[in-house]
Amino acid sequence: MDKTLLVYTTFPDERLAADAARELVRRRLAACVNVIPGMQSVYAWHGEIEEGREAVVIFKTRTGRRDELVTALRAVHPYETPVVMILEAAADDATAAWIMRETAD
Amino acid sequence: MDKTLLVYTTFPDERLAADAARELVRRRLAACVNVIPGMQSVYAWHGEIEEGREAVVIFKTRTGRRDELVTALRAVHPYETPVVMILEAAADDATAAWIMRETAD
Amino acid sequence: MDKTLLVYTTFPDERLAADAARELVRRRLAACVNVIPGMQSVYAWHGEIEEGREAVVIFKTRTGRRDELVTALRAVHPYETPVVMILEAAADDATAAWIMRETAD
Repeated sequence: MDKTLLVYTTFPDERLAADAARELVRRRLAACVNVIPGMQSVYAWHGEIEEGREAVVIFKTRTGRRDELVTALRAVHPYETPVVMILEAAADDATAAWIMRETAD
Repeated sequence: MDKTLLVYTTFPDERLAADAARELVRRRLAACVNVIPGMQSVYAWHGEIEEGREAVVIFKTRTGRRDELVTALRAVHPYETPVVMILEAAADDATAAWIMRETAD
Repeated sequence: MDKTLLVYTTFPDERLAADAARELVRRRLAACVNVIPGMQSVYAWHGEIEEGREAVVIFKTRTGRRDELVTALRAVHPYETPVVMILEAAADDATAAWIMRETAD
């Protein structure tokens, strides 16, 4: 049986993130996407420390959609290598039922 | 022995979220609540794609308080079906001791 | 084999958080740090309910760096007892390879 998941990534800005969110929810790859603008990112990139302003983007989905979501996310994402992390997250019954319903085939 | 947990939900706005946070911390159902305003949510609802501005709300608690917290959260929440996700999250010793102390009976 | 991790904490403000982020990324204890300003915290502290404005800080690292990162984080943190929570988070291949590379010795 599928479990519920959170998929965490970042986008250059809120508008691009919201566009991707609509597309991936429309394709039933996530039930919900939370976009948090105004994040400051500090990261290592080929030996240098880089900084930038980004939006945090959190997808709520199911294990059965994980690979499809990650593949689709990479395809729509403006970065060549978006950072994508996947967290197991249980849900209360009503939340789980909703996520399963909205990400069903 | 209880473990530490993060409970992730969203509220319509920061004020309602902070009110609920005070109530649930007062009732020792969480040691701490982090409210992140200004989040943009994109979600599927009965076949439509809806959008809205919300606050992310993250509760830090213990496994022994999980069900009580989720029940109380649903009771104080303005939504009929708040989306509630539960993440196992270890903590360093000092953090764990604090969470256990502040959520003890 | 190491796994990827998220380490979640909070700082009094974005500037202090970004300073710590640069230091810990420079020391290869995290590949990336996301700083989300403007968070409102409600928490229990010695029987009182306290509130404050903080920044959420999320480190992306590997299990092999966990203890070093938490120790270093506590050393650079302005709080006596920073709240530090650790979440297991899988990553897609490209993300995992990047985190491992940027946190290697």
